[in-house]
Amino acid sequence: MQTVRVALADRSYGIHIGAGLLARSELIAAVLPQPRVAVVSNTTVAPLYLDALSASLARSGVGVVPIVLPDGEQHKNRQTLNLVYDALLANRCDRGTAVVALGGGVIGDLAGFAAATYQRGVPFVQVPTTLLAQVDSSVGGKTGINHPLGKNMIGAFHQPSVVLADMDVLRSLPERELRAGLAEVIKHAAIRDAAYFDWLEANMEALLAREPDALAYAVRRSVEIKAEVVALDERETGPRALLNFGHTFGHAIETGLGYGEWLHGEAVAAGMVMAADLSRRLGGIDSPAFERLRVLVARAGLPVTAPPAIDTDRFLGLMSVDKKARAGRLRLILLARLGAAYISDDTAPDAVRTMLTALGR
Amino acid sequence: MQTVRVALADRSYGIHIGAGLLARSELIAAVLPQPRVAVVSNTTVAPLYLDALSASLARSGVGVVPIVLPDGEQHKNRQTLNLVYDALLANRCDRGTAVVALGGGVIGDLAGFAAATYQRGVPFVQVPTTLLAQVDSSVGGKTGINHPLGKNMIGAFHQPSVVLADMDVLRSLPERELRAGLAEVIKHAAIRDAAYFDWLEANMEALLAREPDALAYAVRRSVEIKAEVVALDERETGPRALLNFGHTFGHAIETGLGYGEWLHGEAVAAGMVMAADLSRRLGGIDSPAFERLRVLVARAGLPVTAPPAIDTDRFLGLMSVDKKARAGRLRLILLARLGAAYISDDTAPDAVRTMLTALGR
Repeated sequence: MQTVRVALADRSYGIHIGAGLLARSELIAAVLPQPRVAVVSNTTVAPLYLDALSASLARSGVGVVPIVLPDGEQHKNRQTLNLVYDALLANRCDRGTAVVALGGGVIGDLAGFAAATYQRGVPFVQVPTTLLAQVDSSVGGKTGINHPLGKNMIGAFHQPSVVLADMDVLRSLPERELRAGLAEVIKHAAIRDAAYFDWLEANMEALLAREPDALAYAVRRSVEIKAEVVALDERETGPRALLNFGHTFGHAIETGLGYGEWLHGEAVAAGMVMAADLSRRLGGIDSPAFERLRVLVARAGLPVTAPPAIDTDRFLGLMSVDKKARAGRLRLILLARLGAAYISDDTAPDAVRTMLTALGR
Repeated sequence: MQTVRVALADRSYGIHIGAGLLARSELIAAVLPQPRVAVVSNTTVAPLYLDALSASLARSGVGVVPIVLPDGEQHKNRQTLNLVYDALLANRCDRGTAVVALGGGVIGDLAGFAAATYQRGVPFVQVPTTLLAQVDSSVGGKTGINHPLGKNMIGAFHQPSVVLADMDVLRSLPERELRAGLAEVIKHAAIRDAAYFDWLEANMEALLAREPDALAYAVRRSVEIKAEVVALDERETGPRALLNFGHTFGHAIETGLGYGEWLHGEAVAAGMVMAADLSRRLGGIDSPAFERLRVLVARAGLPVTAPPAIDTDRFLGLMSVDKKARAGRLRLILLARLGAAYISDDTAPDAVRTMLTALGR
């Protein structure tokens, strides 16, 4: 087991990465204010892992209130959130009862937002069961739900007390979800670490074959990069925005198609290629490097362009309600080169239009 | 105009107290990241003050998105919260658009929670229009909504950037609401300042007659006391709990009768007398001092006992789901004497039962 520390003053916490961690519930028990937790999971993950985690927690003397939700991004909404509140209240959970998220990014975001807002905040623990959640949504404290008019529009910052990233659970992950997780892995390399990008080019097949050492290295390196950036800027007023590389385009795709049609990672994958294409057109990343990114995304089995169902005008409209839009100007993360991203606060909508049109849409 | 500073490191802010402050929107404009706000008000307050505030903001160059909600504690729920989210999104408010609460405690709590959670947090400004909101809910950063199973069960801590407490708006306050506000005024004196309690005994008639100097003094002194306690303990892990004097009993009354039947201040008034009665029975405050509190509450025109409709067993049941209950024990704020409260973490439910029974219920 390796541990990455996320340094956030009095909200610092550890991310444990390794095999067999579901059985290591003493790592959870150590951070709890009382020996009782509510475990929030979904109908796909709970049958696989809820019993094992509950049994492990029981051995550590921790009682479990199970809360099992419907599975899918389309359920990351206020109705499902209310199911969590209702269950916490029905079971008389109090301010010392931690909420444990056992699932992917949707469960983590939703359970985290419930933890942030139940009785004005209770402790939160993440046990991410997808590669995407392990490398991305379990780091940084972002929690939230979707609104019909936009993704993650309702939310809060709420740091976990501890994160357990168990490599064993990735064995049951559907192929499509594994690939979606690789989108964020590629993102971390693209925005901050050219050597890691090289490593990904050399190890993409090992990752797709789920070789444990390769996966553990990718999780650790991605978590380290994200933790570094978050520690610089917990509330996303500055450099943290770099982590949104590909996300403004990606959110437009998700909103335009309706949540759940494409996976988040798939939308981000196409969004990264689009943002890199725009970077290239605006004099940033050069064409060979752009091509390396496009090819790596394609090798991961991920989409490299936006779905044709969303035409250019609609795409631009969807981008401007994204919450990264500030006072009408387009704020985008662009690439100077592989391993180096920057924030562009005044991208002209026309440049985006030209890029979108060139995609043949 | 006087200004009380609430010292909370990088979340410090000023509370301005005086006449004519609705016209002083430059005090708001000074703290805004962009010249646009959403003003959340209700159908009672908006016709009285929304135009004046909007005109003042316009003179300061600030655009206003008005959001007018139904009035009443029974609307402090997720349905009304969603109306705010929907309006913010429909008007494309972004992370720099501040939410301004123009109204009483319900509007402040609900708009504050919307500000805490819209796009993971936007700036928040309070313009409280009731005495209760001026002396209590505009200080301390507590925001939230009710759940059918409990008051303020969903919420967040979110500090305002500035508070404008305008004495002029209190002239339109219904008598019953003025009296409800005096409950929290009495509370602040009872828990922390015997000299202020003496002053209230000498000036209760002036306050009920709405003499501006008396009101301004009471608002200032109450805000100072609350700000001192909050600065000691922003997240309510320790001494801040003293501000809950009367509230565990009061919340049981509000929940038992259904929200909106009694005003919050009325429930707290009865709750304070009940908590003081319990203190007296457990060897704290002496009988003459208890009687002074009871008489002052009665002189303010406030109830001094629980409604007979809630019998003792039901009352105890309602208390134990209150969020101040910790792992089954009753946590209550009791009085050692007038001006000095303490936290009792292990009050025996039987002592509460004896007190409730002695009330003849």
